[in-house]
Amino acid sequence: MQVTITIEKKPGVLDPEAQAVNQALSSLGFDDLQGVTMGRQITVSIDTDDQERARYRAAKMCESLLANTVIESYTIEINEPS
Amino acid sequence: MQVTITIEKKPGVLDPEAQAVNQALSSLGFDDLQGVTMGRQITVSIDTDDQERARYRAAKMCESLLANTVIESYTIEINEPS
Repeated sequence: MQVTITIEKKPGVLDPEAQAVNQALSSLGFDDLQGVTMGRQITVSIDTDDQERARYRAAKMCESLLANTVIESYTIEINEPS
Repeated sequence: MQVTITIEKKPGVLDPEAQAVNQALSSLGFDDLQGVTMGRQITVSIDTDDQERARYRAAKMCESLLANTVIESYTIEINEPS
């Protein structure tokens, strides 16, 4: 089962990468730009058919490795098989 | 209008970061892990109410700065106001 994990900086945490992208886009002439936030998206395939278990395992992965929960928050989304 | 841009490596392009995460998770005991892919998620606020225009501007940003279209593909999604 595929699970998409999105990791973003918590509100109020300084994000120099997003600031740099914002400035770069502004200097390229995108003057209708109002703001930029950036995050990471990690798609993991987990060997289970149980959605609740997949969600639980993905949360474990975030807590133990993928996210720095002091400054980052994560959201977990199950990819429905098409 | 908020637009979410997701940038991923094209299929077949080597992704050492995803490989490293895969190995790290495996060595942490996540033996039900079958695969990892990674991408970047960029949320831009664009000063327009026209969805088509927002989509067009976001594509321009990808082509001119955000994505390396030789090895990366991007998808653009309009965030509906709630």
